[in-house]
Amino acid sequence: MSGIVVQNIERAPIDVVDGLGASGVATVHEAQGRTGLMRSYMRPIYGGARIAGSAVTISAPPGDNWMVHVAVEQLREGDVLVLAPTSPCDDGYFGDLLATSAMARGCRGLVIEAGVRDVRDLEAMGFPVWSKAISAQGTIKATLGSVNVPIVCAGAIVNPGDVVVADDDGVCIVPRADAEAVLEKARAREANEEEKRRRLAAGELGLDLYDMRGKLESLGLKYV
Amino acid sequence: MSGIVVQNIERAPIDVVDGLGASGVATVHEAQGRTGLMRSYMRPIYGGARIAGSAVTISAPPGDNWMVHVAVEQLREGDVLVLAPTSPCDDGYFGDLLATSAMARGCRGLVIEAGVRDVRDLEAMGFPVWSKAISAQGTIKATLGSVNVPIVCAGAIVNPGDVVVADDDGVCIVPRADAEAVLEKARAREANEEEKRRRLAAGELGLDLYDMRGKLESLGLKYV
Amino acid sequence: MSGIVVQNIERAPIDVVDGLGASGVATVHEAQGRTGLMRSYMRPIYGGARIAGSAVTISAPPGDNWMVHVAVEQLREGDVLVLAPTSPCDDGYFGDLLATSAMARGCRGLVIEAGVRDVRDLEAMGFPVWSKAISAQGTIKATLGSVNVPIVCAGAIVNPGDVVVADDDGVCIVPRADAEAVLEKARAREANEEEKRRRLAAGELGLDLYDMRGKLESLGLKYV
Amino acid sequence: MSGIVVQNIERAPIDVVDGLGASGVATVHEAQGRTGLMRSYMRPIYGGARIAGSAVTISAPPGDNWMVHVAVEQLREGDVLVLAPTSPCDDGYFGDLLATSAMARGCRGLVIEAGVRDVRDLEAMGFPVWSKAISAQGTIKATLGSVNVPIVCAGAIVNPGDVVVADDDGVCIVPRADAEAVLEKARAREANEEEKRRRLAAGELGLDLYDMRGKLESLGLKYV
Amino acid sequence: MSGIVVQNIERAPIDVVDGLGASGVATVHEAQGRTGLMRSYMRPIYGGARIAGSAVTISAPPGDNWMVHVAVEQLREGDVLVLAPTSPCDDGYFGDLLATSAMARGCRGLVIEAGVRDVRDLEAMGFPVWSKAISAQGTIKATLGSVNVPIVCAGAIVNPGDVVVADDDGVCIVPRADAEAVLEKARAREANEEEKRRRLAAGELGLDLYDMRGKLESLGLKYV
Amino acid sequence: MSGIVVQNIERAPIDVVDGLGASGVATVHEAQGRTGLMRSYMRPIYGGARIAGSAVTISAPPGDNWMVHVAVEQLREGDVLVLAPTSPCDDGYFGDLLATSAMARGCRGLVIEAGVRDVRDLEAMGFPVWSKAISAQGTIKATLGSVNVPIVCAGAIVNPGDVVVADDDGVCIVPRADAEAVLEKARAREANEEEKRRRLAAGELGLDLYDMRGKLESLGLKYV
Repeated sequence: MSGIVVQNIERAPIDVVDGLGASGVATVHEAQGRTGLMRSYMRPIYGGARIAGSAVTISAPPGDNWMVHVAVEQLREGDVLVLAPTSPCDDGYFGDLLATSAMARGCRGLVIEAGVRDVRDLEAMGFPVWSKAISAQGTIKATLGSVNVPIVCAGAIVNPGDVVVADDDGVCIVPRADAEAVLEKARAREANEEEKRRRLAAGELGLDLYDMRGKLESLGLKYV
Repeated sequence: MSGIVVQNIERAPIDVVDGLGASGVATVHEAQGRTGLMRSYMRPIYGGARIAGSAVTISAPPGDNWMVHVAVEQLREGDVLVLAPTSPCDDGYFGDLLATSAMARGCRGLVIEAGVRDVRDLEAMGFPVWSKAISAQGTIKATLGSVNVPIVCAGAIVNPGDVVVADDDGVCIVPRADAEAVLEKARAREANEEEKRRRLAAGELGLDLYDMRGKLESLGLKYV
Repeated sequence: MSGIVVQNIERAPIDVVDGLGASGVATVHEAQGRTGLMRSYMRPIYGGARIAGSAVTISAPPGDNWMVHVAVEQLREGDVLVLAPTSPCDDGYFGDLLATSAMARGCRGLVIEAGVRDVRDLEAMGFPVWSKAISAQGTIKATLGSVNVPIVCAGAIVNPGDVVVADDDGVCIVPRADAEAVLEKARAREANEEEKRRRLAAGELGLDLYDMRGKLESLGLKYV
Repeated sequence: MSGIVVQNIERAPIDVVDGLGASGVATVHEAQGRTGLMRSYMRPIYGGARIAGSAVTISAPPGDNWMVHVAVEQLREGDVLVLAPTSPCDDGYFGDLLATSAMARGCRGLVIEAGVRDVRDLEAMGFPVWSKAISAQGTIKATLGSVNVPIVCAGAIVNPGDVVVADDDGVCIVPRADAEAVLEKARAREANEEEKRRRLAAGELGLDLYDMRGKLESLGLKYV
Repeated sequence: MSGIVVQNIERAPIDVVDGLGASGVATVHEAQGRTGLMRSYMRPIYGGARIAGSAVTISAPPGDNWMVHVAVEQLREGDVLVLAPTSPCDDGYFGDLLATSAMARGCRGLVIEAGVRDVRDLEAMGFPVWSKAISAQGTIKATLGSVNVPIVCAGAIVNPGDVVVADDDGVCIVPRADAEAVLEKARAREANEEEKRRRLAAGELGLDLYDMRGKLESLGLKYV
Repeated sequence: MSGIVVQNIERAPIDVVDGLGASGVATVHEAQGRTGLMRSYMRPIYGGARIAGSAVTISAPPGDNWMVHVAVEQLREGDVLVLAPTSPCDDGYFGDLLATSAMARGCRGLVIEAGVRDVRDLEAMGFPVWSKAISAQGTIKATLGSVNVPIVCAGAIVNPGDVVVADDDGVCIVPRADAEAVLEKARAREANEEEKRRRLAAGELGLDLYDMRGKLESLGLKYV
């Protein structure tokens, strides 16, 4: 089942991808019905990055980063690499040389349920990574994996071409076919939030804004 | 036992609260006999914040942030929200809208043994949070909890009105009744440390400054 | 076996130590055959520090930092303290006063498989620490440990006088006797990487640069 | 705040204690409104034990079991030792000699948020333990703690004399003053469950037995 | 996306299911190319059980077991319940009453990435469970989830009707469509292993049996 | 540094090894000054086994068990295999076929800071294992490691030929050169404990038996 590279994958329109990135993880996650979120141990290696891109997926053996080199060739402008090891591993699959190569192909970042190294260089280069660990542990190039096959990464299903949204809140996956609809809902949500934010800032209470008092009382909430 | 909101809680004098905040977690923890410290997995979502405030406590079901809205109404200038879920949970109970509302009521920050989201916005707003996780995972509003009841948060007992001190070293709880006495000890400690710092910086050894050599020798320490 | 302080330890030449520091953890770890790396839970308390130094080792009981004071006297210009507790512990063994004292003796930093506190002060002082935890929990001075004996810290063997290299990627230990040879290999590696970086930045693929296509094909990699 | 031994504590009537033990952790936890449960990492060292007893509490420094010896003198027939270290620790505070001594005083078991050793002997002796770890790591006798003061153990508040219920499902604490009322509710619950068990075993569905279909439908559950 | 119950799912032939169960997790995992294995934190609540069955899947909110009742109605002889919470949770979703009901419908066991309780009773009943935790923590019935939709459970994709194989080595999922082919390979593997076992037991070395010496030598393995 | 097999290692006399095994982990750990203990996450795959043997060490890449086959050839009657991966890994390196082969050469068990599978078979065969995980995840045979070189396993240094003692309390390593002296101390300790056990069973308190009351009082312990 491994040893496969799928070359022609479909991607969502780049303006949809960019729109999802502008909305950010929390909004997109809500907009698509609270699905697609990776586990909270996936953390950015530096603060402040916010990206979206089309997933080029990698399934790799533990401690073996050969398939990353194979995947780089499949990258197009606007893509994000997403790697899941076939068994749990914290090794440093990726560093500044691979980032140099990926950036040269238009890659916007890396999401990896494993480790990464050269993190100071990656920050200086402006290449963002969300990972499970930071580790200098070197990897080998001995065993085949696959590129652009469906993977499970940090609890989320990722199909090649899905939209990856990542920021300081974590990483969320939007199925390619849903991307446009989710973007619409995300924007509606944002418009709606703006008004709420203004009223809450003015001192109005959520209890009133969301009309919660009656339901709380009916459930028996007691003020003492 | 849940479904209760205690409205009138006593708080420590605000200058005592502020004094404890100025001393910081490590000093306050020492000054009160090394008690009240939360577990070290409680981390700030951004560096550099140092706060103290009176605890408004929240006991909430896993994945349900309804009681946060109820608690916001109980906030006064100088308070800090402290939330413990009734069973372990990493979901994102709190984001920028709730922070907007809490800040409008004078709230100084949030301590939560669960997750939080919109962390980039929270930093931009200057609303500090100490949490167990950062997670965009949404929560619901379906089940009652309680506000201003005693809780156990990250291993520490928190009674409503207790003083919460939080900085980059973590979170420490000072029982309201002890706040003034602890502040006094904290200040004495700081005065004492200043002189020590000066002598150590000048090259004097702790072995001499604290007069340790005799006791170490009597216990059999051998220099080889 | 505890209760011993070894006073005269050998150190690597300071220019070799500094050279290893300039190469950084990832390069040094590779240069010495992927050995000596500490576990990835050893994290810097602030970003951007990169140091190397000669190890002054500490074996200390859980929750007891007495031996740190003993170790400070053994420090020379260019040293790094390395502490392993005799059983797992997160307590805050080290804070700004000890850092003041250590810096007065020329110490370049601390590596500790336990906790540290006053982290904001330590950053302001420019005293870097790699630790397993940040915790304000105070420690006592009751039981002997040892200074400058071999220890296992976060999975790595550390002998007194070994070279400690630490940066944002973690911590790597180079045996003193190997330091010069490892430095040479690290520099060769860096020279080699410069050329690769240039070619990858220009868009050349790793698949071609490292001549991987043939081997991948022979193992059966299929492009579909 | 440490260095105190409270000698005369009140206990719940022994038949109430025994009744709670017969009901078991899951039932008692439900009967008292889903409170008092320790974290799920507290596991029995061997399967099949089910006990209840009055808590004799111990607050002990990390790696120091001196207070266990002090606590043994405070034990009466039907008591259970409950130990929380003042900071997280996995060391083996307790083994077969202490168990021999505790059993000679009528102690029914140990609940410890730390480690225990000689587990094969403890099983052979029939002395049950619920612990966070099994570890042979020895402890010292150097620093005071306290006996029979309120503690937080694995997330639960334990006051001396509270009823400790422990079985294969974990550990639950019943406040002494509530013990009788909780027992009554536990028994009502058990009576109620017997009838349900019979009906479910006969093939009746929970959906019908608990009359859930209407509510599920009204919330929009769709069968496809 | 939640609030759906799929009623008619396809299942693999029962003799294929039973054949996979007889082969066991390690063999089945190998036979299908080392895929489908759940994370190693999924452990049996008691030793010695070995089952296979068709998956009836449950997606449930944290701390809410309502959907388990809904799922029970969908069970047929030979099924296994597989539950994944929508965010990480250790609560005790399942106990002896639900097991009674599930067994009455022919259910062979439960796989749950959360907690379970009444474990002693479940063992006495012979109802095996593989779970992430054992916890008495009660759950509520307030929010919809779904039954028989695709889920990710402990890192593995589970579609309704897939074959669940579970024993002391963990849990492995075989896609329904592959079940027959995997069974064939598993049996071939077993036949092959029998001969190897006999030769190894007789003292033959794996180095010779698998003809490894040449390859090891060519890679440079040195005997000293 | 890898790719080496040391063939002739020295072992402790078999009667010394057996004596240490009879004493057990807790006693041996104490007898050698509380050193050599592995981390408490190293657990037996089944209860009740107690072994000692001479270490044949394995350093293996993550997810690659080739060196286990190489190590089996180096086994002699009374040996124990000890494996540490070069980076953290939970994969199942070892199962019933390797156990068959190892037993045929007189091997007494396996200690592995990784995973193991076929655990039910291993128990039936009476081949004990202490591991970090139980996992069916298969491994490959692609990269060299080393056999009989010094390793760090679960925090303990293990040199080839050291004595491995393992039972339900965990795993302890005794350096070969110290084995005889440690055995003597272990036996003295046991003799001493027998008398203590008798007196404690008769109701004498540790406070009196160990003459602790005076020291506790001098430190300020207060009975209230």
